[in-house]
Amino acid sequence: MNIKKLVYLGLFCVPYFLKAQEAKLIQYVKPLIGTARMGHTFPGATVPFGAVQLSPDTDTLSYAVNGQYNGDVYKYCAGYQYDDPTIVGFSHTHFSGTGHSDLGDIQIMPTQGKVQLNPGTADRPQDGYRSPYSHANEHAEPNYYRVLLDKHQIKAELTTTTRVGIHRYTFPASDASHLIVDLTAGIYNYDGKNVWTVVKVLNDSTLVGYRQTNGWSRTRTVYFALRTSKPFKNYGARYGDGKPVYNGFWRKFDQQNNFPDLAAHNIKLHLDFDTKAQEAILMKVALSPVSMKNALSNMQEEAPDWNFDGYVKEGQVAWEKELHKIEADMLNKEDLVNFYTAMYHASLMPTVYMDVNGEYKGLDQEVHKAEGFTNYTSFSLWDTFRAFHPLMNLINPTRNADIVASMMAHYDQSVLKMLPIWSHYANDNWCMSGYHAVSVVVDAILKGTYQGNAEEALQACVQTANTRNYEGIGPYIDKGYVPDDLSGTSVSNTLEYAYDDWCIAQLAKKLGKEDIYATFSKRAEHWKSLYDPSIGFMRPKDSKGTFRAKFDVLDTHGQGFIEGNSWNYSLYVPHQPKELMELMGGAQKLESYLDSLFSMELPDKYFEHTEDITRDGIIGNYVHGNEPSHHVAYLYNITQNPWKAQQRLRQIIRNQYHNGHAGLGGNDDCGQMSAWYLFTALGFYPVAPAADAYWVGSPLVKSAKINFENGKQLSIMARNQSEKNVYVKSVRFNGKPLENWSLSYELIKNGGELVFEMTGKPDKRKH
Amino acid sequence: MNIKKLVYLGLFCVPYFLKAQEAKLIQYVKPLIGTARMGHTFPGATVPFGAVQLSPDTDTLSYAVNGQYNGDVYKYCAGYQYDDPTIVGFSHTHFSGTGHSDLGDIQIMPTQGKVQLNPGTADRPQDGYRSPYSHANEHAEPNYYRVLLDKHQIKAELTTTTRVGIHRYTFPASDASHLIVDLTAGIYNYDGKNVWTVVKVLNDSTLVGYRQTNGWSRTRTVYFALRTSKPFKNYGARYGDGKPVYNGFWRKFDQQNNFPDLAAHNIKLHLDFDTKAQEAILMKVALSPVSMKNALSNMQEEAPDWNFDGYVKEGQVAWEKELHKIEADMLNKEDLVNFYTAMYHASLMPTVYMDVNGEYKGLDQEVHKAEGFTNYTSFSLWDTFRAFHPLMNLINPTRNADIVASMMAHYDQSVLKMLPIWSHYANDNWCMSGYHAVSVVVDAILKGTYQGNAEEALQACVQTANTRNYEGIGPYIDKGYVPDDLSGTSVSNTLEYAYDDWCIAQLAKKLGKEDIYATFSKRAEHWKSLYDPSIGFMRPKDSKGTFRAKFDVLDTHGQGFIEGNSWNYSLYVPHQPKELMELMGGAQKLESYLDSLFSMELPDKYFEHTEDITRDGIIGNYVHGNEPSHHVAYLYNITQNPWKAQQRLRQIIRNQYHNGHAGLGGNDDCGQMSAWYLFTALGFYPVAPAADAYWVGSPLVKSAKINFENGKQLSIMARNQSEKNVYVKSVRFNGKPLENWSLSYELIKNGGELVFEMTGKPDKRKH
Repeated sequence: MNIKKLVYLGLFCVPYFLKAQEAKLIQYVKPLIGTARMGHTFPGATVPFGAVQLSPDTDTLSYAVNGQYNGDVYKYCAGYQYDDPTIVGFSHTHFSGTGHSDLGDIQIMPTQGKVQLNPGTADRPQDGYRSPYSHANEHAEPNYYRVLLDKHQIKAELTTTTRVGIHRYTFPASDASHLIVDLTAGIYNYDGKNVWTVVKVLNDSTLVGYRQTNGWSRTRTVYFALRTSKPFKNYGARYGDGKPVYNGFWRKFDQQNNFPDLAAHNIKLHLDFDTKAQEAILMKVALSPVSMKNALSNMQEEAPDWNFDGYVKEGQVAWEKELHKIEADMLNKEDLVNFYTAMYHASLMPTVYMDVNGEYKGLDQEVHKAEGFTNYTSFSLWDTFRAFHPLMNLINPTRNADIVASMMAHYDQSVLKMLPIWSHYANDNWCMSGYHAVSVVVDAILKGTYQGNAEEALQACVQTANTRNYEGIGPYIDKGYVPDDLSGTSVSNTLEYAYDDWCIAQLAKKLGKEDIYATFSKRAEHWKSLYDPSIGFMRPKDSKGTFRAKFDVLDTHGQGFIEGNSWNYSLYVPHQPKELMELMGGAQKLESYLDSLFSMELPDKYFEHTEDITRDGIIGNYVHGNEPSHHVAYLYNITQNPWKAQQRLRQIIRNQYHNGHAGLGGNDDCGQMSAWYLFTALGFYPVAPAADAYWVGSPLVKSAKINFENGKQLSIMARNQSEKNVYVKSVRFNGKPLENWSLSYELIKNGGELVFEMTGKPDKRKH
Repeated sequence: MNIKKLVYLGLFCVPYFLKAQEAKLIQYVKPLIGTARMGHTFPGATVPFGAVQLSPDTDTLSYAVNGQYNGDVYKYCAGYQYDDPTIVGFSHTHFSGTGHSDLGDIQIMPTQGKVQLNPGTADRPQDGYRSPYSHANEHAEPNYYRVLLDKHQIKAELTTTTRVGIHRYTFPASDASHLIVDLTAGIYNYDGKNVWTVVKVLNDSTLVGYRQTNGWSRTRTVYFALRTSKPFKNYGARYGDGKPVYNGFWRKFDQQNNFPDLAAHNIKLHLDFDTKAQEAILMKVALSPVSMKNALSNMQEEAPDWNFDGYVKEGQVAWEKELHKIEADMLNKEDLVNFYTAMYHASLMPTVYMDVNGEYKGLDQEVHKAEGFTNYTSFSLWDTFRAFHPLMNLINPTRNADIVASMMAHYDQSVLKMLPIWSHYANDNWCMSGYHAVSVVVDAILKGTYQGNAEEALQACVQTANTRNYEGIGPYIDKGYVPDDLSGTSVSNTLEYAYDDWCIAQLAKKLGKEDIYATFSKRAEHWKSLYDPSIGFMRPKDSKGTFRAKFDVLDTHGQGFIEGNSWNYSLYVPHQPKELMELMGGAQKLESYLDSLFSMELPDKYFEHTEDITRDGIIGNYVHGNEPSHHVAYLYNITQNPWKAQQRLRQIIRNQYHNGHAGLGGNDDCGQMSAWYLFTALGFYPVAPAADAYWVGSPLVKSAKINFENGKQLSIMARNQSEKNVYVKSVRFNGKPLENWSLSYELIKNGGELVFEMTGKPDKRKH
């Protein structure tokens, strides 16, 4: 669908919501939250799920490597670190909250004076085009970012449409004002990452081109079209170190100055202007996954004029509409900021990955046309299958169905015949364990969100789960577990495959595929293979069936897990938690296990091996900053003391989410951390996403209204909500008490009233 | 147009020709002619103007460079050198007769035993996949090539359709037979030329992919689809030195063995088979300029089955049709071989550059669809404007019109707004001097061959000629010459621009554009600026108007010329030869100048600077191997002794063209040397191509029939033709004596009889 239509739809719908709420929700969104330390969010401008994320980069580290990458680069997953003193430029693509990265495409920097085409270093910004800046002169809100670049006193303002970044640079007077276009810059950069760059200067204010990289995405090309509001008086190009060997044609033209037909390994450009005092030069940069001409069409369609403020407003109208999908009343403004910033962070990815004409590049590296759906990319599924996609099923079902359709297209185009693992920009980087697209696909079909061919989807899930040569799946099928000697993450994989297999069984059951149901129901119990009753933990086992002798249940590194030690990961059986509990010795045993987890001390030497989080990201040995623990506090619900879940959940939500730039204790992980917050703040959580059961916790909202796409509303009320009243005395849906602290999608999907009675005293009766 | 239609058309037409001539002309074509030393032709299989030239490469030299390229690589412009002892593989794209190169894409080599993925060296073939071979076991004919690879006694046979290379490899028995697919191999190769490679293995006998290079064409991508007649039992890949830095995903799969989803800087593959004794495995490789899926479609459309011999025959039928455009009777079989091999070499380039569905990649790097024409690429215009395109106008007018249409598309897609200079594969390498597309375009319009919009074409010519920042055009316009201090080829450029400008004036005149006619008629005389009457030669002049003091009329190097010294180049005023003669002092002066040119001794030190030719390629100081001299012998026609033209022409044609692998004295230059031969053998030559005048020389044919596309025939008869009777006593067209040794297209285009009376005694009466 043409995003402009969506926006226009938004223009008509939003006033209704505004009237209902009489508040602008974007005021509560602080894009700078999470930009310090480990949050890895970006502060720049974007529209909901937009293809362009136009944001400042404070470093992108270009450096030589020998098969190894510099650890420092990890800081710059989103291109920006709040504590950095300089900005190198403004680029158009950013992941939000990842723990590995890519992108940072088509970096622009306004400068004055002598042309400098290298960024320089943070401690010597005078050696390059980068500039110091001050947070006092920086402002970020949804779809608008502003900063004053101190070096030349240039004001930079950014906004976007879905596929176009719009820049406004206000210069002091000079006959040497420049816009630097550095196509070699990029996030997680290194020598050789740039594969190829092309630029064609079409006229005195328009150029097109592309940047091709070999990064986390092995083979990625971003096409662009760039237009300035004022003609450049002159322009020039340099080619970095990538000298052409056949340089005969260099004699024919002066190819460094005003030469419009450029192709080389590493193109950097400068566009030169005369500027009067406080003269604003605008620039539009449209992206396309397909071609330069599609990028030009995207620009023409989405951003035909130079009304910068109009584009800001259009995007903010879209944001209001997105944020109004949940109208929350909280205890205080700080909580509103946390809540709506979480809504914001959970509405950035996946991103639209097709042109206005519906064309996109598929996983097969061919151009396709999306028929009947919007194609999305950037699926961080190991993170997002847990809470993000279940949240989408509730508040964004059409978009989630399009995401599933995009995954099915990925599968169709996959020469491996696999659903995506961690895919972005027509590539899969196969990051993390499991094959969790299965969970998203099954959940969307079972909840009725995805209306595509369910049998084909089941086939895709089965085929993916039977990719024998992928990450130990063959031996997993044969032996019931991934052997320790064949995989460094044998336990994570075994546990997660088992959950995913359970999802497949559920879909097979619904479709009456008895064989598949039987096969995958059996596989769903494979987690049992790795439970070692002698120590009461999950433990790696070798091909011969022997548990690993030397094993440290506290260590995250080299023990058969990824982003989690055995203490945390042993609880990862979301589909069969009671069976796990029985194996562990019953409710009492599970409860004391959880008590220990939250209260024990994790020695520093173990913390150092815990990835992607800050010291604040843990409570005892419970690691909230990494996703395998996200369902853990809810497990108290099946012990005799569910109140402990309520207590711990309130503790976690207070401890792990703050206003301020360091407000996230770990990577936001493409909205998963935020989606956890939103579910938990609303009082329930999808422990096993593809099961129709939300587990009730302790709401943080005073009240909330979820506006479903079907026009119905789920109203949530937390009576006697307060900072101290963290315990749930009772919970009723449409007046009827809930059983087993559980709520179903079937129950709430047509709206209704969910009422919590909050209290300061836990209900310590055994349940 | 679908080439299959052309072929089928051929099937119906050819029997008519065969009946008429009752001979197979392909028997006279020896593709091995010119493959030794400087001819730079390739011996492999192709159809007329085919997109695929499937041919053995004896070396492609991959080596490290520091901004310099190894001179040795020049030997391998066509990939093959007759005297080499080994073959490295069979690749799908080859220029014919160039003096610089590129291509050699998708190289295949059959081997047995241990998998070797490096070519090894010619003196130690056992270190790599290359194999020794013997010319005794080698055979080449149009669209069929065969060789026995000695190392493993594998017979290799090659044939093609327009867009598909078809291989047949007959193996000895082995459980380790291989087809090596080396995507890093290429002609004029060097470290870093490969920009990127991609392979997707679709099933056990099909793969698709692409190879992207930065070579003579700066930014070139060749897409391919490959299918084997027998499933491979196993396959594997290696990546050369281009290690990926983000190697996280390498843990997920074994990416070296049977991994179908490959993308890296330098992919090499081995496909493994069991073979019985004398088992033939066939392979089809289809190319596309646009996409892998188009390559698959091309294969499906053109080569749907495995009938190798059928494809050989289809192509040979097309060759018979092409060769029958001139039916010649010669003095002996050697001459027939020279004649039809010249016909063959003049029917290889330009090559079809679009898919069966009409899609091609444009100069703007976008995908276009050719509407109403076949798109061609590889225009070596500095060479081919002279005789090759005039020949096309006579015998291949539809194809020449499509070539002009392709040039106009190039112009439309050019951000520089220039017609092609030396363009190939959606790029221009701007090689050599002049803007000679102008000559081709104007000639095709004036002769009525090109029926497109003439005014647009004139505009394209004017715009190209006014590209002020290209190779001194600005100062050329302002001062009347390219200044020596601004260009290393100031004289060549000035002379050639002047001719091209004259062409533009002729078209302007025809279209009634008085202003353009006046402007360009004036520019057509700019050659006069550089004639130095004090020495009687063209001479470089600096910006201040001073002739260069230190100047050597014999040296080709650094004197303001390219591929020619002042002795040869000073005669390059093809449009105003009489004015040149007057400036030189009249007919007598010109005659003695020519006499000296042909009879003087060129010292070795000067020959060493003469590019692209062997010692045989010169007569005195006349350099036939380089194109600026191609009209020179005909200039005797305006002196008082035209018989000297006849004498020298017979000498040149006897001296410069031989049967045998070393039969060409210089680069064939994409058919220009061959087209010169054909015109001269027929008895006339287009001295100024865009003028309607063929200058009469001395025919070599006994008789010939040119079958025009309009169904008419030009019959040529050389009465009393013999080895000794090189002089023309009289020449009549339809019984009427010709005036001034000149013939016009207007006169012959509807056929007729051209009769030469040959004699052994020159007509020494002054004319």
